[in-house]
Amino acid sequence: MSTTTSAQPVALTTDALLAHWQGHRRLTRRVIEAFPEDKLGTFSVGGMRPFGALAMEMLVMAAPMVRGAATGEWATPDWAAAPLPKAELLRRWDESTAEIDELWPSIPAARFQETMTAFGQYTDRLHALLLYVVDNEVHHRGQGYVYLRALGIEPPAFWVRD
Amino acid sequence: MSTTTSAQPVALTTDALLAHWQGHRRLTRRVIEAFPEDKLGTFSVGGMRPFGALAMEMLVMAAPMVRGAATGEWATPDWAAAPLPKAELLRRWDESTAEIDELWPSIPAARFQETMTAFGQYTDRLHALLLYVVDNEVHHRGQGYVYLRALGIEPPAFWVRD
Repeated sequence: MSTTTSAQPVALTTDALLAHWQGHRRLTRRVIEAFPEDKLGTFSVGGMRPFGALAMEMLVMAAPMVRGAATGEWATPDWAAAPLPKAELLRRWDESTAEIDELWPSIPAARFQETMTAFGQYTDRLHALLLYVVDNEVHHRGQGYVYLRALGIEPPAFWVRD
Repeated sequence: MSTTTSAQPVALTTDALLAHWQGHRRLTRRVIEAFPEDKLGTFSVGGMRPFGALAMEMLVMAAPMVRGAATGEWATPDWAAAPLPKAELLRRWDESTAEIDELWPSIPAARFQETMTAFGQYTDRLHALLLYVVDNEVHHRGQGYVYLRALGIEPPAFWVRD
């Protein structure tokens, strides 16, 4: 378990990582919004999960990961949570966004380099655990882009994050 | 234009960012390998580009981004580069991987927080430019997972990066 020292060359500060993630979350929110209500929980390609289920996976991991990192208390995510109607999913998404912003500053800086076990099963350094959550969101959102195109819907611009 | 100071809480060191990206590149390489030769440059869903074209986009951005960051010389990527046969694409991928590893340590640490214009058109702090390249890879690779599933092929495990 290493700790932060001033000798480490910084690629990303803790603030920059949060800003990066929240930019992705704004884009993912727009992708959720782009799905017609009746397709969000049902449409898929190649037998994969519908985007509503993928968004639920993001939702049950995101704020709980930050809460665990900040408090050391790891609630088990409800991986089997039923997909929500679009309006309720967006409401929960916004709640999570606010919770992440609120909890983030309380994570001690040194902890980002420490190894911990998230949700009782994923062991890695905290920055890698957080990046995994972001990557998982980007990965599944990329699936969502294909679903939207297959539905004849233009997805939101990938490079717009504000 | 800000510079690195020891007061900045570190989420990701420059070494960790490189390791993170190279882990993604190993996974993307396995996704390229998973495509049948005749589908790599032709198969798509929803009118999107075939995975061979997406992988070319990754290829023409990756090492040139690091070269630009390290040297200040920005060659214009050949965005319209024709998709390569699989073996040649994998060979070029491996060359890029080695080039990125070789050039990375020569990027001055402070530069990761500096604002620059990549390829004459993308202006942002270097760490954000680099993360954009990684995110673009993860995003398009997510598309590739859908293509593979639609072809009845099991994609490589998302969480394996070694």
